[in-house]
Amino acid sequence: MKYCSHCGHPVTQRIPENDNLPRYICDHCGAIHYQNPKIITGCLPIWENNDAENQILLCRRAIEPRYGLWTLPAGFMENAETLEQAAERESIEEANANIDSLQLYTVISLPHVNQIYVMYRAQLCDKNFYPGAESLEVELFSEQDIPWDRLAFHTIHFTLEKYFQDRKQNHYPVHTHTINTRNGKSADQ
Amino acid sequence: MKYCSHCGHPVTQRIPENDNLPRYICDHCGAIHYQNPKIITGCLPIWENNDAENQILLCRRAIEPRYGLWTLPAGFMENAETLEQAAERESIEEANANIDSLQLYTVISLPHVNQIYVMYRAQLCDKNFYPGAESLEVELFSEQDIPWDRLAFHTIHFTLEKYFQDRKQNHYPVHTHTINTRNGKSADQ
Repeated sequence: MKYCSHCGHPVTQRIPENDNLPRYICDHCGAIHYQNPKIITGCLPIWENNDAENQILLCRRAIEPRYGLWTLPAGFMENAETLEQAAERESIEEANANIDSLQLYTVISLPHVNQIYVMYRAQLCDKNFYPGAESLEVELFSEQDIPWDRLAFHTIHFTLEKYFQDRKQNHYPVHTHTINTRNGKSADQ
Repeated sequence: MKYCSHCGHPVTQRIPENDNLPRYICDHCGAIHYQNPKIITGCLPIWENNDAENQILLCRRAIEPRYGLWTLPAGFMENAETLEQAAERESIEEANANIDSLQLYTVISLPHVNQIYVMYRAQLCDKNFYPGAESLEVELFSEQDIPWDRLAFHTIHFTLEKYFQDRKQNHYPVHTHTINTRNGKSADQ
């Protein structure tokens, strides 16, 4: 940030009165420009097979970062929507996947990139999914077929790993977690 | 937003290519300025009385909005911290309260103000708390003394209400919720 988004004059970085962190401040109009973490929300769409193991819908990324790697439908939350609406919107945008029965599942802090992931378990309503503009392909995977070494993000790895662990007990507590370096070194909480 | 924070030229609002929502766009440098919900995080500090009912620490606000009303320690999450660190920092800033054993408790979407509340249950470590700059007073309350009609926010009301309900069963699932109008009309999820 170099210029004030309210008045267009240059900003400087310093600690405002009654604060303890440096902020971008406009000396012309007095605006203080706070910068805060962004929320990425999405879901783990579960296809319930009556006569076989449940499967999970993954998307292969058609965009950077991590072009060509597999992920769960997720993306930046927008203003004026709820977390659940954002997760449903991302499922449609990335996989044209209709989901319902959302249940909060993983909440992951990534302080090195100023992001919070909020992921839901969800039921996939039908098999009418197909790739959206940001996906090369979308596909159902059984546990033994998950491409663990070609997943796009540590957050996705963590969420899938917890799901397959919890599925054994049929008990799905909400998991909080921190991933705090770029190479994915992480601390359970 | 009227001016580009990168180059200082005026921005216009329109839908970028490959997008479906209007964004602030700079026609001079090409920057797209996304606006996203902010996270407010905090905690419900619990003082465990060995010989009586547990008590909850509340803060009476010394700042607007809702000056003079009671709240739980909470505030805007900063960049470069985890949700748990943010909740601990807010407890110190508002009440000089030392907390530990944080457990995720309520996750509340407020789409009309572009906010997400993430509240933790926490153990209050000692009784050495005292008001921070943003509090008029900080005090322990038993359930029967909670000032329900003088609480600052619906999110705080919801979190306290769930806590006292769950305490009866000694079972504290994570609660998700939406509060979607300014008068606090809300929908359970």
